[in-house]
Formats: sequence, C-alpha cells, structure tokens
Amino acid sequence: MPNPLRLGIAGLGTVGVGVIRILENHAALIAARSGQPIEITAVSARSKAKDRGVDLAGYAWEDDPVALAKRGDIDVFVELMGGEDGPAKASVEAAIVAGKHVVTANKAMLAIHGQAMAEAAESSDVALKFEAAVAGGIPVIKSLTEGLAGNKITRVMGVMNGTCNYILTRMENEGVPYEQVFADAKALGYLEADPNLDVGGIDAGHKLALLSSIAFGTKVNFAGVELEGIQRISITDIEQASDMGFRIKLLGVAQLTGRGLEQRMQPCLVPKNSPFGQLENATNMVLLEGDAVGQIVLRGAGAGEGPTASAVMSDVIDIARGFRLSTFGQPAIGLKNIQAAQVSAAAAFYLRLMLKDAPGVLHKITGALADAGVSIDRMRQYSHADTAAPVLMVTHKTTRAELDHALAGIISTGVTLQDPVAIRIEDV
Amino acid sequence: MPNPLRLGIAGLGTVGVGVIRILENHAALIAARSGQPIEITAVSARSKAKDRGVDLAGYAWEDDPVALAKRGDIDVFVELMGGEDGPAKASVEAAIVAGKHVVTANKAMLAIHGQAMAEAAESSDVALKFEAAVAGGIPVIKSLTEGLAGNKITRVMGVMNGTCNYILTRMENEGVPYEQVFADAKALGYLEADPNLDVGGIDAGHKLALLSSIAFGTKVNFAGVELEGIQRISITDIEQASDMGFRIKLLGVAQLTGRGLEQRMQPCLVPKNSPFGQLENATNMVLLEGDAVGQIVLRGAGAGEGPTASAVMSDVIDIARGFRLSTFGQPAIGLKNIQAAQVSAAAAFYLRLMLKDAPGVLHKITGALADAGVSIDRMRQYSHADTAAPVLMVTHKTTRAELDHALAGIISTGVTLQDPVAIRIEDV
Repeated sequence: MPNPLRLGIAGLGTVGVGVIRILENHAALIAARSGQPIEITAVSARSKAKDRGVDLAGYAWEDDPVALAKRGDIDVFVELMGGEDGPAKASVEAAIVAGKHVVTANKAMLAIHGQAMAEAAESSDVALKFEAAVAGGIPVIKSLTEGLAGNKITRVMGVMNGTCNYILTRMENEGVPYEQVFADAKALGYLEADPNLDVGGIDAGHKLALLSSIAFGTKVNFAGVELEGIQRISITDIEQASDMGFRIKLLGVAQLTGRGLEQRMQPCLVPKNSPFGQLENATNMVLLEGDAVGQIVLRGAGAGEGPTASAVMSDVIDIARGFRLSTFGQPAIGLKNIQAAQVSAAAAFYLRLMLKDAPGVLHKITGALADAGVSIDRMRQYSHADTAAPVLMVTHKTTRAELDHALAGIISTGVTLQDPVAIRIEDV
Repeated sequence: MPNPLRLGIAGLGTVGVGVIRILENHAALIAARSGQPIEITAVSARSKAKDRGVDLAGYAWEDDPVALAKRGDIDVFVELMGGEDGPAKASVEAAIVAGKHVVTANKAMLAIHGQAMAEAAESSDVALKFEAAVAGGIPVIKSLTEGLAGNKITRVMGVMNGTCNYILTRMENEGVPYEQVFADAKALGYLEADPNLDVGGIDAGHKLALLSSIAFGTKVNFAGVELEGIQRISITDIEQASDMGFRIKLLGVAQLTGRGLEQRMQPCLVPKNSPFGQLENATNMVLLEGDAVGQIVLRGAGAGEGPTASAVMSDVIDIARGFRLSTFGQPAIGLKNIQAAQVSAAAAFYLRLMLKDAPGVLHKITGALADAGVSIDRMRQYSHADTAAPVLMVTHKTTRAELDHALAGIISTGVTLQDPVAIRIEDV
C-alpha cells in the first residue's frame, strides 16, 4: 500500500467532526477508492477540552491553525473554521506558501479572497478546492467544473441557503409570520452568528459569485451581486403567491450578457410545479444550463454534518487520486474581469402596496404605473378593518428599471404607508 | 501551448456529430479548461459519403474502426457506434491493447463486457470512461465515482430510459393507448433498432447495472437485474394510478442487502409530488443515496446530440487534465462478486385483474389473496358492458414472494381472462 495522504483539520465544528467520522468509518473503502489510505495527522480548534463525540487522542493538537497549516507531516490542510478573514485566511495562505493542498468549506473567504488565493495556489502548484462551500453535499462544483466542461455555460440558478428556504417553507406551511420563524431558527442554531449572512442573502450571494466565476471564466465578483434578503416577505405575500400558483424562494441567477455579468440573489416567485417551486425546508437546488447539455438540475442537502463532510471528502479524495485542477476550472491568471451588469431581462413582478384608505388613492397609483410604462396584469384589494388598505398586483413584463421608476412614482404620490414590496416572477 | 490531445472517433451518428460540433465551436474554451488543445485526428463510420452537416475534410478517414483504434496518431479512442459486440467491442479491445484511452457511450457493451474491459484497461494503464453511457448529459458517473466517493452508497434509483418515460407521459397526458404511442415513437426515431431494448427495460437495466457496480464495488451483473418492461401498462392503469395520486414510471432500484445485491428495473407507481413523479417526457432522473450525503437527485436530458456529446467531452477533458481513475471508481480486479438477491422489501402493489363476470368470482379472488397472506387496502370494480369485469385493487404492504404466491393462486382459480398486471408502489 502506498504512503497515506495526511490531513490537518482546522475547525472541529459539525463539519470537522463529520470528516473525522467518515474517515473512521470508511478507512478501507476510501483507501480502495483513493489508491492510498487517507489519515488525519493533526487537528486544531478553539477548545481542546470540548467533548465533540469523537476521539481526538490519535491526532496531534495545534492551538494555532497557522502552525497546523505549516506542519511538515501534513499534505492537505482542511480549513473548516469559516470567516472571511482572521485565522481562516491566515492559515490558508500559510498552507499554500508551505506547499500544502487546501480543502475549504469557506464561501465567505473565497468570495472575497478567492482570486488571490487561487493565483497563489496555482503558482505554488497546490490544489485549492471548495466543493463544500456551495450547496453542501451536492457535487455542484465538480459538475460545473468537470461534468459540463465541454459546454459554454449560459446560466446558473440556485436556491442555496437552506435556512432561508426553511423559514419560507415554514411560513407557508404553518402560516407563521417571519419574525416568529426567524426566532425559532435562531433557537435551533440554524442561523449564522450574524443572521444577516443568511436572511440578507449574503451567504447565498457568496455561493453564486463562486459558481459564476467557474461558469463564465470570470474573476469572482461578489460585490457585483444584486442582493436582497427575505426579511420583508410577509405571510400575505406567500399566500398571494400561492393563490396564483407560485411559491417564494430566495433564488440566485447568474448569466453573461452583452452588457456584462448579471448576478442576482433575491426572493422570487417561482411556479409551484417547477423544480425550484417543489423544494421544501433546507434542501438546496442548483440548475446549470449549458449550450450542449441543456438544463441539469441538482438537488440535495445544502448543509449539515454528513452532507458537508461528504463534499470535503470528495475534494480530499480527488487530491489523493492525483487530480490537479485550477481552483475555478481554468488558470486563475486568465480569468476575465467582466463588469457587473444590471439585470436587463424583463419579468412580471408581484407588488404589495400598503395604501392610505382615501378617495383617489388607487387613481394616483395607477397613474404612477402608467407614467412609467408599467401595465397591470391583475390587481386585488382586500377589505380591511383599519385605514391601511393592502393592495396586491401583478404587472405585465417590465424591466427592473421601469419598475423602479414606477415605484419611485408611487412613493412620491404620498399615499403609501410603507415602502412597496416588489418580487420578481421567475419563469423557471 | 502543449501538444494537443488527439481523438479518433468511431461512429458518426447523432452523438459523434455532437462531439465534432462542440470541438469546432469551443476549441479555445476547451483548451483553456483542459490545459491542452483537443483535436480530432481521424474518424470512422459506415458511410463516408453521407452528409452529416459537419465538414469531415480535416480528419483522416478509416473504414475500419479497429484500424482507427490502433492509429499511431491518436491518444483517445472515442467509441460511439453502439452494440454489445461486433465492431464496438473489437475496436475498444484493440484500442486498449494499443495503449489508447477509451471513451464510450456504449452501455450494452459495458453491461456485458465491462469487467473484462476495465481489467484490460487497468493493466494497460489507460482510461476507460463512460459518462455518456448512463443518463445522457447528467454527470451521474462522475457524481457517484468522485462526488460521493466519501460515502458508503446505500441505494441508487433512476428513471433512465427517456423513450419509456416519453411513452408513459404521452399515454397519461393524451389518453392515447400504448400501441399508438409506441408507433409514434418508432416513427419519430426514438426507439432503438430492437425496440425491446427500450420498452423491455433492457437499456435502462444496462445503465442500472453499471451504476450498481460503482455504487457497491461489485462486478457488473446485468444478468442479476430483475427486468420488466412497460408493454403491459394500459391507460386504465395510468388513470387509476393518477386517481390515487401516483404516476407510473419505469424505475430502477439497486441496493446491497444482507442477502445480496438487489437490482430491479420495472414499472412502479410513484407519488405524483415526488421528484420521480414530476418527471415529464424524455427527461432522466437519478437518485444517489449515501450514508453521509443523504439523497442527491440529478435531473436532465438523458439522450440527444448535445447532452450525450457533453458527457463524452467531460470524459475527454478529464483525460486531457490528466485525471486517471479506474473505470468503476476502484481497481476492477478488486470488485466483488456479490450474488443477485430477490427484492425483499415489502411494498404495496397495484393489481389489475380481468375477470369473468359470474357469481362467486370475487369470492375466489379474495380467497386466493387471503391464502397467500396478502390483504387488500382498496378495491374497485367498474361497471362493464361485456362479460369481462376489470377489477383494480391496491394491496397492503407485502413481499413480492407473497404477491407471486397470491397471483398464482388467482390464476389457478380459472376466473381470470388475462394474466394479472401487478405494479409495485414505490414510496420515494
């Protein structure tokens, strides 16, 4: 048997423990598949004493992940600490300089520093891999980088934040308002330390930016992602969407157009009977569209110990098998700098307006829409007990620019009691 | 730029032409992704004169695919002729002996000769890859072999014959009987030369046997697949299934149990709102279940020029990138010989009986079921104009062995006018 591939794991949360468990349970199977045994040499985490349910006695301990990354007795540095900067960044950089391969689940770090890190890894001739950073256990990075490598990729779409999908599903199924489901999710530990990473769409935006880079051969441009969270989605919106045959999902879309790279991560109405409309709870789904293959849809658990550890192991086994591939599927130095483009494709929009209950109000609203060239497909006003009249409408297809013009006009009439909610209707 | 990777393509039907088109359209993109240009050196097909819509002038021509496979100026032999034996087998064997990598879309050949060919390829130290052989453009071989390599695979399921799914979908949506849709499919060129390969479930069975081998580390055992085609599915069955919230799909299931390797490819009732139940037309879907990752579902076009050529190119680019992997994900010599096991898990079954219309008939049927220990969940008898009474029922969960006992008992009563139709209800 050849020498083992030796891992150093930094970060022993859920995913780190999952990787240890897989290697404990399936050592022989993985050795047969990899062509060499895979072993853990050393680990690092914040607390050595904490009981994690796995026995760490066989592994060397490092308090400092940077020291772990540099150890002479590891071949692969597995970064599972998370965080855009700090120890994660410092230790990954140290590992690359020390000539170690790197496997990470850290989308925030790569969305910001991915280009520089990929260039560094490629000039050090080491792998920098991140299957676990996007859509958990779904092999989406591999599918895009390798499985569809013969395609010009035309579009990438995805529901990639399980927490948001969990919140939206519970709101819909139980009729519980956002604030309450959010509190439950927090209590259950489903939310990041900064919940805005989840509900603000940032985490999913990080993932979309990484997929875009591979898909279109462009430098990672997270700043160019149009981001909108799910915080303003109400039960009313969900019920209205449902009445019309739609569900609301935090959906990411990326495509390269003549005007630049469009990337958006925002709540959308999707048809109930579409693949995205059928997603429940924390499940993730990614759609990859290529000129030869058409549309491929991948679905699975986007988070959790087993699924994420499975993705980490996929990268580790690739390294053991001797697969060497640039981080984003082609040399980082050659990735293009494409400007971010506003989303140009027209769409129908769902609008929720909260209006003063007074004569002429609807007349003003419809006037503002007409002035902006936005026409109304359907409209509904509910009977209401107080002085605020909720008005729901669906526009005909319009560009976001025209819609924004219309919304500005609506606000300037002075008859709205809160900012209008506008949600794109996505035909997928 | 490094030297090009040189392909010899045998078989210029839809898929071969698709590969030529991809290489013509995306030469620079593929070179950037592969690390070297990929070029076609020579081709072979039955007719040199036929107009295929692509210009072959730049490629050397070989009448004999075996001669093509041995040419000194090719690195990869791409076999797209099809057929279990004959020129496909001869030329792939010749290519391996000549030290050429092989990429093939030929499930029939691999389902029968895959073990021997994989052993030969591994001792010649060449790749033998077959992403295009299973589920067209869906990167299912790669997902299973690489993406889920850290998992003990517990189950594989799939709808993998687009033609069968097309027939069943049209029967359901248009209420057209099997014979007529079959004739249409034949006229449209959707059927293999021997239609039984499609509608008899053989083609899908080949694919399932290949997936099983990778999933469970076993030798390909196509003979061990329990096969049942869709020929006996009637409009009545489809309507009844629909009334109960189900659709009928030709579904493959493979799992390793204590009693051996279960592999079956047969029509099943699946819930309409399940991933498999939502499949339309020629779309394929594969579910991969692993102990760490849970269930991953992959969906896409299972056939056609672009999707299949995309899968071929994925294999070719893997070879250009220097990825070397055993055909079934681990050395062929170490694959286990596991006996085929009868399907043991109990399930509810849908039954359609065509009975003589006479006193006591139902009493005899229910007696036969009771004798076999099969209990009835629901039953329906339609009013009927003639002397044949169609009776439809759903059993409670029972094993296939008990059910077969019951069916034998039913037949032996002498009151059936045709063999009973029994379709498993799969909770997926």
